[in-house]
Amino acid sequence: MAGIQLTQTHMTYHTDFFALAEQLITAGRFIDSKGWVPATSGNFSARLPNGTIAITVSGKHKGCLQQDDIMLIDADAIPLDGKTPSAETELHTALYKRYPDVHAILHPHSMTATLASRLFKTEVILQDYELLKALPGIKTHDTCISIPIFANDQNIPRLAAQVDNYIDQHGDILAYIIAGHGLYTWGHSVQHALRYLEALDFLLLCELHLHGVKL
Amino acid sequence: MAGIQLTQTHMTYHTDFFALAEQLITAGRFIDSKGWVPATSGNFSARLPNGTIAITVSGKHKGCLQQDDIMLIDADAIPLDGKTPSAETELHTALYKRYPDVHAILHPHSMTATLASRLFKTEVILQDYELLKALPGIKTHDTCISIPIFANDQNIPRLAAQVDNYIDQHGDILAYIIAGHGLYTWGHSVQHALRYLEALDFLLLCELHLHGVKL
Amino acid sequence: MAGIQLTQTHMTYHTDFFALAEQLITAGRFIDSKGWVPATSGNFSARLPNGTIAITVSGKHKGCLQQDDIMLIDADAIPLDGKTPSAETELHTALYKRYPDVHAILHPHSMTATLASRLFKTEVILQDYELLKALPGIKTHDTCISIPIFANDQNIPRLAAQVDNYIDQHGDILAYIIAGHGLYTWGHSVQHALRYLEALDFLLLCELHLHGVKL
Amino acid sequence: MAGIQLTQTHMTYHTDFFALAEQLITAGRFIDSKGWVPATSGNFSARLPNGTIAITVSGKHKGCLQQDDIMLIDADAIPLDGKTPSAETELHTALYKRYPDVHAILHPHSMTATLASRLFKTEVILQDYELLKALPGIKTHDTCISIPIFANDQNIPRLAAQVDNYIDQHGDILAYIIAGHGLYTWGHSVQHALRYLEALDFLLLCELHLHGVKL
Repeated sequence: MAGIQLTQTHMTYHTDFFALAEQLITAGRFIDSKGWVPATSGNFSARLPNGTIAITVSGKHKGCLQQDDIMLIDADAIPLDGKTPSAETELHTALYKRYPDVHAILHPHSMTATLASRLFKTEVILQDYELLKALPGIKTHDTCISIPIFANDQNIPRLAAQVDNYIDQHGDILAYIIAGHGLYTWGHSVQHALRYLEALDFLLLCELHLHGVKL
Repeated sequence: MAGIQLTQTHMTYHTDFFALAEQLITAGRFIDSKGWVPATSGNFSARLPNGTIAITVSGKHKGCLQQDDIMLIDADAIPLDGKTPSAETELHTALYKRYPDVHAILHPHSMTATLASRLFKTEVILQDYELLKALPGIKTHDTCISIPIFANDQNIPRLAAQVDNYIDQHGDILAYIIAGHGLYTWGHSVQHALRYLEALDFLLLCELHLHGVKL
Repeated sequence: MAGIQLTQTHMTYHTDFFALAEQLITAGRFIDSKGWVPATSGNFSARLPNGTIAITVSGKHKGCLQQDDIMLIDADAIPLDGKTPSAETELHTALYKRYPDVHAILHPHSMTATLASRLFKTEVILQDYELLKALPGIKTHDTCISIPIFANDQNIPRLAAQVDNYIDQHGDILAYIIAGHGLYTWGHSVQHALRYLEALDFLLLCELHLHGVKL
Repeated sequence: MAGIQLTQTHMTYHTDFFALAEQLITAGRFIDSKGWVPATSGNFSARLPNGTIAITVSGKHKGCLQQDDIMLIDADAIPLDGKTPSAETELHTALYKRYPDVHAILHPHSMTATLASRLFKTEVILQDYELLKALPGIKTHDTCISIPIFANDQNIPRLAAQVDNYIDQHGDILAYIIAGHGLYTWGHSVQHALRYLEALDFLLLCELHLHGVKL
């Protein structure tokens, strides 16, 4: 088995993988500099043109990732190189299946998302901020969006189904929060997802300040 | 048209432009290190001795600007090099027309200005701070200044007119806030504007702490 | 006496010591970058395979430790190299005696632990956080742990006995707080202890925000 | 006059001056990294063995001081090199005259001291913190000290006299706050003063959190 997997490694890693792995490593350094991935929390991924997915392995500190800490899975979350992906991998693959234009997903554990989920329970409403224009498809501050909050669950397929059902019923979303856990956001590229993350964390913090969590 | 603009580029960029572009890039790094320009928010400009204006292009992260991300416009906000300036360019040109001694304008999106606009609605009053002496023309802490807050508006000429009318009626101001958006401040040089910005953000944060936003 | 100790120095420092000292120095830089060791506060240690202990000397700033600021003691806190260890050394040796698998102990003075001890008095309860999974032996967010708080005491043997008695009565703990002082945490390696510390400080700060200290 | 001063410059700068200037420059970088000297606020000094005093000139940013931004005055605040010292120089010379063992004075404008003066009005009481032991002469957390707060005054000799009278009546102090302005602290060396400053700012922030300023 190990031999087969080694062979697969030699067959599947190529330029696209290394380029995206480098982007995830750089994103991790930025995200950690903000304090959004304490200990070994968080996970990140990026989809290759051929449909396979580069994703962080389980259990590493996201502020000092190495190339070896990024692995390759297929669209169904099956490891292609014998490494162990994040326990939450199926949340990534579910989003990639739903959204063909999405090529990067970032999931940090920032304190703002953690506290927002305790304060707001089911959703965070963001409106009347100029910075909303940093999010995809928004042209004016005079906009109102909802970031849904889902109960945490160690059963990841069940949690992924909960997200899928929500989107089926409520329409497309730009991000979601898992309660007591963190934010998921995504975009056309790692750079886009990183900008959305930076904007969303800022806006969540504004809301916490304005609504009375003792931040 | 593109050909003409390309020619203009070759004609208009010179030493003054590159020196000021470098100052704006350095200022951007400092401002981003404070967390005041999340995602691609904010815009900065500096006026050349010949009256043209170096200004950040639309849509770049202000913490990692390159020379190519600074463009040249004339005093009426007309691009001189075929690039696209910030959507808020006319707020800059209006200030340069009013204040001949102003050679730099900085507009970050700090959380303090965003929250201050939600808390104070029409103006922030700053008084009895030693740090007021960092602002131009102030010699003692025993001073009281007002930073007006204007409603946000995606119609920039209308917003610029609102600022102009306010100054016509109330006299000169040192800075203003656009609600849910950010602070505009300016000075004789990029360095001066940066010092005023640093002092104003500190004083706005003091006021937030003292007036009860849960910062 | 000084002569004997000098000789011991030449005899006792070896590769294990220098490797662990380097890890403590690096950990100190990280911990200081978070603001958790103001002035010369805090102390760190790591146990060598031969049972001796590398520990920070008294009175140095933990953000800029040098090899010379780490000393060697035996399992009973007796200096082996003529240097003066931290006044709190016996808190370290007591933990090493109780927990054979522990090879590193970190004690910073973060504001979160200081404030948590004023707010919660006898213990901090942490539950329903995904980040709990960063702590040893915890597999789900649906877990509840207690971090006990002990009154501060300049009599260190008496304080160490207080900790020992508590564990005898209540069972194993992952960390404890000394009131108005700081957190003690430990792990199988310096890296493990550092990850636990990062997770615990994050969770303590969440609790402060949620329980109303005006952080 | 300028000629005489130029000559004095050549006569008075020597190794001691350059060594202390370097220490003040390094201290400034550290203090600025904490956000304690916004804009061009703050001033620092160190006393040479011959009784003259190296002090920051007026109007420079303390995070990027150059050797040229440190000047030399005598014990009565008379410039010895033709430069202009900080407007608050006489607060430094008054402390040096009172305390022969003091060789460094640091005065930042941190937000904690600014807010503490608004909240506590006449004095800040610090007690039952382990970190008090970082201050000179304190051996146990079971200690209570007072940091007096003086009203701000642009008349510096009058302010210096107010401080002197207070100490005459109340006995020695370790630091004082000028309201809406900042903290003064001092020590046997720049390093000592910097450690006291770091400890005091931490403890002031603890008090703000515990007493309800919305920090």
